[in-house]
This record gives sequence, C-alpha cells and structure tokens, in this order.
Amino acid sequence: MTSFTCSASDLHALLGSGANSTAAADYICNGFNAVANKFIDTTYAVDNTYLLFSAYLVFAMQLGFAMLCAGSVRAKNTMNIMLTNVLDAATGGIFFYIFGFAFAFGTPSNGFIGKHFFGLSDFPSQSFDYGYFLYQWAFAIAAAGITSGSIAERTQFVSYLIYSSFLTGFVYPIVAHWFWSADGWASPARSENLLFGSGVIDFAGCGVVHLVGAVAGFWGAFIEGPRIGRFDHAGKPVSLRGHSGTLVVMGTFLLWFGWYGFNPGSFINILKTYGESGNNYGQWSAIGRTAVTTTLAGCTAALTTLFGKRMQTGHWNVTDVCNGLLGGFAAITAGCSVVDPWAAIICGFIAAWVLIGCNMLAEKFHYDDPLEAAQLHGGCGTWGIIFTALFAKKQYVNEVYGGALNRPYGLFLGGGGKLLAAHLVQIVAIVAWVSVTMGTMFFVLHKLNLLRISAEEEMAGLDLTSHGGMAYEYHDEVGEHSKKRAIEV
Amino acid sequence: MTSFTCSASDLHALLGSGANSTAAADYICNGFNAVANKFIDTTYAVDNTYLLFSAYLVFAMQLGFAMLCAGSVRAKNTMNIMLTNVLDAATGGIFFYIFGFAFAFGTPSNGFIGKHFFGLSDFPSQSFDYGYFLYQWAFAIAAAGITSGSIAERTQFVSYLIYSSFLTGFVYPIVAHWFWSADGWASPARSENLLFGSGVIDFAGCGVVHLVGAVAGFWGAFIEGPRIGRFDHAGKPVSLRGHSGTLVVMGTFLLWFGWYGFNPGSFINILKTYGESGNNYGQWSAIGRTAVTTTLAGCTAALTTLFGKRMQTGHWNVTDVCNGLLGGFAAITAGCSVVDPWAAIICGFIAAWVLIGCNMLAEKFHYDDPLEAAQLHGGCGTWGIIFTALFAKKQYVNEVYGGALNRPYGLFLGGGGKLLAAHLVQIVAIVAWVSVTMGTMFFVLHKLNLLRISAEEEMAGLDLTSHGGMAYEYHDEVGEHSKKRAIEV
Amino acid sequence: MTSFTCSASDLHALLGSGANSTAAADYICNGFNAVANKFIDTTYAVDNTYLLFSAYLVFAMQLGFAMLCAGSVRAKNTMNIMLTNVLDAATGGIFFYIFGFAFAFGTPSNGFIGKHFFGLSDFPSQSFDYGYFLYQWAFAIAAAGITSGSIAERTQFVSYLIYSSFLTGFVYPIVAHWFWSADGWASPARSENLLFGSGVIDFAGCGVVHLVGAVAGFWGAFIEGPRIGRFDHAGKPVSLRGHSGTLVVMGTFLLWFGWYGFNPGSFINILKTYGESGNNYGQWSAIGRTAVTTTLAGCTAALTTLFGKRMQTGHWNVTDVCNGLLGGFAAITAGCSVVDPWAAIICGFIAAWVLIGCNMLAEKFHYDDPLEAAQLHGGCGTWGIIFTALFAKKQYVNEVYGGALNRPYGLFLGGGGKLLAAHLVQIVAIVAWVSVTMGTMFFVLHKLNLLRISAEEEMAGLDLTSHGGMAYEYHDEVGEHSKKRAIEV
Repeated sequence: MTSFTCSASDLHALLGSGANSTAAADYICNGFNAVANKFIDTTYAVDNTYLLFSAYLVFAMQLGFAMLCAGSVRAKNTMNIMLTNVLDAATGGIFFYIFGFAFAFGTPSNGFIGKHFFGLSDFPSQSFDYGYFLYQWAFAIAAAGITSGSIAERTQFVSYLIYSSFLTGFVYPIVAHWFWSADGWASPARSENLLFGSGVIDFAGCGVVHLVGAVAGFWGAFIEGPRIGRFDHAGKPVSLRGHSGTLVVMGTFLLWFGWYGFNPGSFINILKTYGESGNNYGQWSAIGRTAVTTTLAGCTAALTTLFGKRMQTGHWNVTDVCNGLLGGFAAITAGCSVVDPWAAIICGFIAAWVLIGCNMLAEKFHYDDPLEAAQLHGGCGTWGIIFTALFAKKQYVNEVYGGALNRPYGLFLGGGGKLLAAHLVQIVAIVAWVSVTMGTMFFVLHKLNLLRISAEEEMAGLDLTSHGGMAYEYHDEVGEHSKKRAIEV
Repeated sequence: MTSFTCSASDLHALLGSGANSTAAADYICNGFNAVANKFIDTTYAVDNTYLLFSAYLVFAMQLGFAMLCAGSVRAKNTMNIMLTNVLDAATGGIFFYIFGFAFAFGTPSNGFIGKHFFGLSDFPSQSFDYGYFLYQWAFAIAAAGITSGSIAERTQFVSYLIYSSFLTGFVYPIVAHWFWSADGWASPARSENLLFGSGVIDFAGCGVVHLVGAVAGFWGAFIEGPRIGRFDHAGKPVSLRGHSGTLVVMGTFLLWFGWYGFNPGSFINILKTYGESGNNYGQWSAIGRTAVTTTLAGCTAALTTLFGKRMQTGHWNVTDVCNGLLGGFAAITAGCSVVDPWAAIICGFIAAWVLIGCNMLAEKFHYDDPLEAAQLHGGCGTWGIIFTALFAKKQYVNEVYGGALNRPYGLFLGGGGKLLAAHLVQIVAIVAWVSVTMGTMFFVLHKLNLLRISAEEEMAGLDLTSHGGMAYEYHDEVGEHSKKRAIEV
Repeated sequence: MTSFTCSASDLHALLGSGANSTAAADYICNGFNAVANKFIDTTYAVDNTYLLFSAYLVFAMQLGFAMLCAGSVRAKNTMNIMLTNVLDAATGGIFFYIFGFAFAFGTPSNGFIGKHFFGLSDFPSQSFDYGYFLYQWAFAIAAAGITSGSIAERTQFVSYLIYSSFLTGFVYPIVAHWFWSADGWASPARSENLLFGSGVIDFAGCGVVHLVGAVAGFWGAFIEGPRIGRFDHAGKPVSLRGHSGTLVVMGTFLLWFGWYGFNPGSFINILKTYGESGNNYGQWSAIGRTAVTTTLAGCTAALTTLFGKRMQTGHWNVTDVCNGLLGGFAAITAGCSVVDPWAAIICGFIAAWVLIGCNMLAEKFHYDDPLEAAQLHGGCGTWGIIFTALFAKKQYVNEVYGGALNRPYGLFLGGGGKLLAAHLVQIVAIVAWVSVTMGTMFFVLHKLNLLRISAEEEMAGLDLTSHGGMAYEYHDEVGEHSKKRAIEV
C-alpha cells in the first residue's frame, strides 16, 4: 500500500495504557482508506487491461473486413476495396478524434447529439478516457466497412472518400449517442424518462453498427444499380464469384476472433460485482456468458446455412457458410449479454434463414451487393434487435443494465411488450435517419456524376484505372511487361 | 470497498473512553472482511481476463489450421479443407455445448466419463464457468483439425461430418475427462488413488489433444490409402506439393501465436501465489516460464529441421521448417509448465528428428498424410509425453500441481520411474481408445462406401465436385467463362 | 487473504476489559500486512497479464513482417523472404536466450554491455522475469526483420544466417543496453550521471529497433547494389512490383495490430499510480493515451501519403498508403508515451513527407530497397527521435520516467535543448555503432563472395535455386510436371 504501513509498535502506543483513542482510530482508518484507494487503482488497471485488449481485437476486425471484402470481389478490384478498408480506419481515426467522439459521447448534452470533448479536450470520466475512445473508434470504423462492401466494384474513389468521412464522423456518432451515451433519447443508461420505461438494449450494436452500415450501403448500392453482368439480358442473376475463397475464410475467422472484443468487450469493464462483494459472481461471469452466446449463435447459423444451402443448391458452399456464420454473429450482437445460451441458438438458427430470405429477395428485385452486406448486416441485424426484445432474461437485464430493478425484459420470457416497442422504434429511427442522411448524400453524389465509375472502367477494373495496377503478379518475367504496358496506357 | 468505509469518528467512539470493545472489534473485522471479499472479486476479474484472452488465442489457432491446411493441399481441394476447419469450430460449438463439456468435466462422476452440465445447465464451480467452457471448446476443436489434415484431398464430405462430430462430441471429451477432470482415472488432480501415486502430467495436451487427433487421423488415412499419384508405379514417393507456401507460413505463425493461449493459458488462472503471499512469486511467473519453454522448443526444432533437411535434401526448405517448428510446439505441450528452458531446447531438438524419422517411416510404408499430421502430432506428441516424464522438475511439479508435496517427477532429475510409468500407460490408453472408437468408425464408413471419393472426383478436385467451384479466380474475364462451364457440367 | 482472517471474538478479547494492547496492535497489523502482501500478488498477476499479452501482440508483428515482405517481393523470392522471417524468430529465440538478453539487460554492469543472466540463469528482478524476457525477445527479432527487407531478392541464404545471428545476438542487444537498461550510458533510468541531465527518451525504440534495423539494412543493400532491372540502361528507375498487394495490406494491418503491443506494451506494467493512490490516475491512462497517439500518427501519415502520392503519381496507391502508415507508426514509437494526441498528428504528417523524400533520394542515388525499409524505418525513425525531443510534454515525461522531477522535456514546449542534444547523440551513436559492426560484416561477406547471389540465380529466383521450389502452384495437373522438371534441373 503506497501511503500506509502498519507499525505494531506505533499502534500499540496508541491503544495501550496511555491510550489515545482518537489517534488509534485515525491510524486504523488511515490503513483502511489506503486499502480502499489501492483497490481503486487496481480496478482501473484491471478494467483498462480488459478494455484495451478488447479494443485491439475489435481493430483486428478491420483486417477481417479487408480480407473478406478482397476475397469477395473480382481480382481486378482488390486493391480498391482494400484501400477503402485501410482508409476507413485512418480517416475514422482523425474524424473520430476531432468530432466523432464528441458527437457521440460529449456529455452532458441533449438527447440528440453530444457537444463536448472535441479533439479529446476531455473525457466523460476518468473511467472512460483514452481506452474508451480507442474502443469506440474501433466500432465506428466497422460501420463504414459494411457500407464499402455493398457498393464495391463500381464506385468512384472520390465518392468513397466523401461518404465514408460523413458516415464515420457524423451519421454514426449521432446514432451511437442516441442509444449508448448517458444522454441519448433512447439510451437504457438515462437516469430518467427511459423510452417505454426501458430504453433500447442494443448491447454491442445490432442497430448502432450493423443496421447503420447496412442502410447506408443499401442506398448506395440501390442508387448505383447492379454491376455489369450481374443480371443477364433475361434478368437472370449471374454469380460474379469473388476471386479468392481463401481470403473469404480468412476474413471470416478474423471477424470471429475480433467479435470476442466486439461483444464481450462492450461491457467496458470487468471488475464489477453483481450483488454483494465476495459472492463470487459479477461482470466477469456475464462477460464469459456473452462470449458463449456469441459463439453459439454463429455456430448455429453456420450449420443451418450449410444444410439450408445444400438443399437449395446441391453442394456444400464455403462462402455461404461464412456469410451465415457472420449473420449469426450480427444477429446476436444486440442481445448477447442478456440472453441464455439456448436462446442464442434460436437466434442463430433464424438468422441463417433471414439471410437466405434476404438474398432471395435481393436477387428477385435485382439488388446487387457484392458482399451481401445490406442483407447480412441489415437483415440479421434487424432480426437481432427483435430477438433481444423477445428473449432478454430478467436477471441478466437487471444485472447488466442495473439501476431500475423493474426493467422490462423479453416478451417471450414474460417481460411484456415494452422492450419490443422500444426496439421497433429503434429500427424505424435508424432506418429513417440513415436514409435521410446517407441516402440523400448518395443521391447527390449520383446526380453530380461522382458516384459510379464508367462502364469502361468497370470492365477494366478499378485497380488498373484508379490505383496504379493490379493486386497480383504471379508470373513476373512475362507479366511484368504486359502489366507495365497496361499501366502506361 | 463496496460495503465498508472506515469512519474515524465512529471508531473513536468505540475505542475511546466509553469504550465498547465488542463493537470496536466488529467494526474493525467488518473492514477486513470487506477487504477479503473485494480481493475475491478482484481475483475473479483478473483470472477471467487472463482466461478469456487465452481462449481467444486458442481459437485463433483454428484460423492457423485453416491456412496451414489450405496451403498444404492442392488448389483444387482448398475450399474443401477450409470448410472442414470452419465446421470443426461450428459443430464443435454445438456438440460441446450439448454434451461434450458434460462428458469431459461433468463432475462429480466416475473415472471414465462425466455426467453433469449437459447444455451448460451448471458448472464445476464459479471459478470454472463460461470462460472455462469457451477455453475447453477451443481445445476440443483443435483435435478435430488435426484429423482433417491427415485425410485431406480424398475424403467424402458426408464422412467428414460424421467422424468430426463423433470425435469432438464423444471421443475427445472422454480422454479429456481421464487426464484433466478432477475425477479422471489418470488425472493428477484426483484427491486420492493417483495413478502410480502421480497421475499423468499432460499439462496442455500432448496426449489429450495431439495424440488423439493424430491416432484418429492415422486410421482414416491408413484405411483410405494414399492419394492418387502420391506413389508412382515403382512405389517411389512423389511429392504432391501444396498450392501455397505463403499460406503455410501464415498458418504456422498463427498457430505459434495461438500456442501462447494453448500452453500458458492452460494454467486457467494467474492470480495464485506459490508459498507465502507477498513473496513476489506465483503462477504469473510459471506462466511466463511456460511461454518461454514453448518458444524455445519450437525455435530449436525449427533450426534443427532447417539444417537436418538441408543435409537430407540440399536446400533450405520453408515448409519443412514450419512443420519442424510445429513439431517442437506439439512436443513441449505436455511438459511446458514443469520443465526448465534448457530442457525445452532438448525437447525441441529431439522432436525435429522424431518428425524426420516418422516422415521417413511413412514414406517407406506408403502412408500418405497431406499435412504430416499423424507424424507431427502423433510422433512429436508421443515424444513430448515421454520427455515430460524424464525432465519434469520437482519444484515446478509441486508448485503447478500442488497437493501432495512428494509427487514423482522427472526420471533424469532423480524423480524415479513412476511418472514415466504413468505416461506410458497414457500413451497405450489413448492409442487403444482412439483406435477402437475412431478406427472402427472409419472402417465402417469405408465398408459403407462413404469414406473415399471416386478417382474421377479426386482428379477433378473436391472443390469442383462438392463445393460449387474453385477457391481462386484470378483472371475473371476469361476465367469466368471456363469456370462457369466447368461448374455447369 | 491467504494468511489472515479477522476474528471479532479474538480481537474483542484483545481490545476488551482484560485488554492486551500489544497483542491487539499485532493482530490488527497482521491484518494490514496480509492485505499489503495480497496487493503485491495482485499487482504481479495484473502486470504479467498485461505484459504477456503485449508480448504476444509484438510477436504477431513477425507474421505481419512476413506477409508484408512476401507481398512486396516478386513471386519467385517469396519462400526465401518468408524463411528469413521465420528464422529471425527462431534463431532470435535461441541467441537471445543464450546471450542476447544478458548483453542487453544483465545488470549490474557497465554502461556499454550487460554481463549477467546468460541462458536465463537469473533475472534483473522478480518483476522482470520470464515475461520480460519474452517481451524483449519479440523486440529483438523485429530489428532483424527490418534488415532482411532491405536486402531481399538478391542475398545468399548463408549470408542471411550469419548477419541475422550477429544482429540479434550482439549488435541489437548492446544498443538496447545503452538506452533501455538501468546501466546504459544514455539511459533515462540511470540513477545518476544522466546524459545531458536527461538520458534518451526512446520509449519503444525509434532508435533501438527501427534505426538499428534500418542502418544495418542500408549497408547491406548499399554494398549489394540494386536488383537486376531496378534501374534501366539510362539509369531510370523501374518499379519491380511485389507479387501481392493483398499480402501487403494484410501485413500492414497485422503490424498495426501488433504495434499496440509494441508501443503501449513498452510500459511493461499497468498497475502503477501517478501521484497519490486512489486519485483515479495512473499508468493505465498513460497506456491508453499511448495507444491513441500511436493510432493518430499512423492514420495521419496514411492520409498524408494518400494525397501526397496522388499528386505525385496521379493515382490512389494502396502500397504507398500502407508504407506511409507504417512510417507514421515508426516515427511515433520513441515519443508515443510522452506527447499529446495533437502532437502525434504533427508527427505522422511529417513522417509521411520524410518517407516520400527519402524514397526520392533513394531513387536519385540508385539505392534499391525492395521494402523501402531503410527509408521507412531509418528516415521516419530518425524523425521520430527528433520529434520526441521537440514535443515531449513536461507532465508526461515526469510521470512516465519519474525520479528527477526536473527532467528536460520538449524544446517546443519550453523544455530547453538538453533533450534534443541527447537525442542527436543517440542518432550519431546508433549510426556509428551499427555502421561499424554491420557495415563491416556485410563488407567482409561481400569480399568473401558470400553476400550476393549470381545473376542467373537472381533471374531464376531464390525459391527455385535455394529453397526447393516456388511458393505457389495454382494449376496442379499441368504445373506439377513443369515445376518438377524445373526442380530436377
């Protein structure tokens, strides 16, 4: 203990025959106060260790996105899509530092937008300082990654630079403010006037991250229209296979790995007791449970997709299984901390069918999304929001969200319909907000001819036309020359 | 401290002239009790942080396996082998949740099989709850990954689905029960009747994971026979090179990375003192030592293989070095926590020669294993079991395994032959159990014509015949058409 | 608490009517001593958890280097460069164990070289035991990785084995001793006779790691001369594109991921209070800030490079952005812990231009470095050393380095020129030391004809001539034969 060492002889003098009870009491209480302070230090160290490594894992998802996206597009657009993933992280870092973090978490403020901490001038509290910023930054850039998948292979790079900055720096932070800051109008952490007496339980961001990215991507892809060749003259869908299944699997595993930072990490701290101290039960257990529900939802969705697609197509498709797996993860993201493992299995099972259904709808309506991003993150994300309102368990809701002990919980577990009402409002609010902002932005870019590349560029591929060359050069002697000519053209 | 704040004035009143010594004593002891409780909370938080991130690292090995396997097979079977790796994790998640964890750790039970906690209905204790389940799941799926390597490039996918479930859900958990649960007949954690007064020291699973996966893979590969072209008409071995050395190196590094979760993580908790509290010495140090022994064993094996193979073949072979490295890791897995760093170097040195020898034997007997998995995990794993019985250090054995202070230790360090006897029994037991279960299963599948694909399928590759297309498409314009034709055939 | 349980009845007897104040004081102090001891244990566990996982992240950078290097060379040299990355780790492990760690941290010793702990016979202290060794090993191998990039595609493998061992086992550890051990002549941790009253603030190794690796690489590449074809007959530079942009991006992201272990991890421990205990402020916050400054420097450098190169070349180049990003990271490495986030943005901005400038110089002087490693790690590393001397903040310097509260700090923040003087000495000392040792070694190897491969080998590629075959084999039926012939030649 930094400032206290117990000296038996000193204390004896105070307690003994020439007793000085005031001094003795001071002495003993000094000891306990030093212990209490040391526990504060320890808690900070433990919680920050937990938070920082979780943030690093979430950041690793950016590599996962990059590889998944790269593998899912044709070789000629690989450099383009990977550059967007690198830049999501880089522009996101700058914009989130300057104003994104402030819009999201600049408390105290109103219910709509935060207004402090621009340029990290300060923090919500000492428990939520640099590590918290880093963690939230890693989340912000994930949303932009979803959108760039939807509009891959046909979007002008300048257009990407514009919408990506707008999304990460403004559109996303405001949604994060609504549901995650202590001031947000639909936040479960508000001290009063909770939406439907509950607020929205979007623990790690089915709505805030996945639905936001998906709606933005949907409008981009919808306005741009399908890639050349995606639907033949008869309107029949033609599969434009990505160039590397290996990268798809690698990206999927990396996202899985990172999701352990995304979902369990959203607790932010781990040294927090539920109930009385010393009862062996606290946030650490809820965090482990969240890792398990996340795992089981993904596993179930993967297996469901394996057999579902086998029935549909006659073969065992790896990329479909990967997408199904990710759909399960996306769906469990909102409720991961407040449902039981068995419920996570239901969540994943239905998420797989939601994704299959959304993909059928997309083909029917000639919507082309090279990553299935809008279907996956939008469809499964929406299902996840509803799922949480149906299966959230009373005990877990009160432990994780604390405060009011009569919080509404899952409808199917007897908790009434208030949570469901709040969650339906969330879906409507996000769809409306992102449509108005990002939809408008994509439309304006489209009207300014800044959105879609020319047909010639699309045939040649973005890497050659915008990025100085192809990603791969396996046969250097010969290839070097033909490549070089192509570039010099 | 949650429930105690020391008030000097209150305490003074109790200690002072109108002293109430009963109340004073209560007051002070309440303080200490609150401190003790807070330490319990802190320990849970620290240990779970350690355990969960270790589990995430072990999970990352699954990506490592996927890349290593993908790179080691020919391009035409890439999707197939990667799908098995994704599904090992996914089916493993469901089966380990429903019954695998129960069979392994469902205590109290008998020495052969656990019988509680099906569907995570409960846990061994609050120190071994969700995080422990997640960690053990990540181990279980590693065993299945070994086996799928041995029988790569020629096995029906349906067959994979069957044996993989059986291995992860039943065969492996029972072996884990024998050596790792508190009830297992050969567990060093039994309270009485330790096998040879010792039990088996298989710290992170030379036997439980590596030998189990290897024996299963051996029977599969043995029954299926070699791939077409692996041995020419004269019976001379022909190297069927994997399609990507880059993926092999990537997978190897990822496995190395994950092994830091596998070996040091097997301590499960880190906040545990050895000897008196406050002596600066405890499990955290043993964990660091385990990371170092693991590193040194792998490094030594890599270097030994580099020069050994150079002498054999005349060139500096990367994939051989990677396999040698992994052989060193596999060998140190059992003893990593109870040997000194210098012993780890001996372990790695011999592991490299064991692998070289096993590969020569395999070629001689026309045994074909595309990943050298049976040789590597079986050969080096067996050596690791014996190594531990020879070099386990008295002090470390008693610190890590605790309890009886007269535990047998390494034969070469003066600890007698009891540990070696126990370890030889382990080898025999595992080989017998896995041969009877998995060997029989593969034989039945073989007899039902469910095991091996047809020669035509093998020539065309599994990706085209079972998985809807090849993994790669680097030249989309032209390739797209020829590929599509191939699929439509 | 292990050895103390507070018994109210026992304490009452001591405090009560038949009071025994000596025993009461002992009793209470025993309690506090047990608490103090338990805090020591807890601190060890928390700090080691933090340190070990940081070490694992730094190790993951080795995979990042391997992928970055592989992607940046032509396909025909892929196996060669990856083998050097695997062996950096493996030989580094053995040499750092036997003597490297002793040379660097074998204290007490003189200012030039350490002289204890060969073969891990002991440790600096129990707070710096196995985990510390592992962490420092992961740093040592990073330096060698830089060098192998500079001389890629044209160096004899035997030569690599020699210089790599010498660098990791001798040259690097001595530099680490100078600046990082408690005894080093320029260390800020010396108890007296600090260089310019300050010592060098090279927190995570701009000089110790990046500049050392870069100067070594520079001499190697300079003595070997450019690769065949790198400059045409007119002396005009010809781009020899790497074979995979995907691997470059992957490697970059992995290095980014690992840099969170490299920079914030260099604090070694996290449970340390700044000022009074219980004031909510300590090393955990500085660690978070370090992660943020690291992130912002890299992000800024990436964006600056994006636009800077776009102006230069007319396209949006991914690999340039990746190199710029890494240049930003390299530059912030020295000062990451002692500067504010806004300063990190300046650091990254200038780092990008330094790299662009160094690359222009390199082309002008016909210096060929396939990875731009000397430019990036040398140029940006040197800038980072100077940057720290300009922008180090008084408060942070004193918190992070402690001891003397009047430490010199950044010139631009009013701290005077002493820190800058010390840092200029660092640059000169490192350049001189590495030039004398490594420059001489490369020159001797060159004179012995051990350094550069023949022109025929260079045209054919190292993989075919030294490593038994190419990295890739995408078309196995046909390729298998032609490849095999090539090998048998």
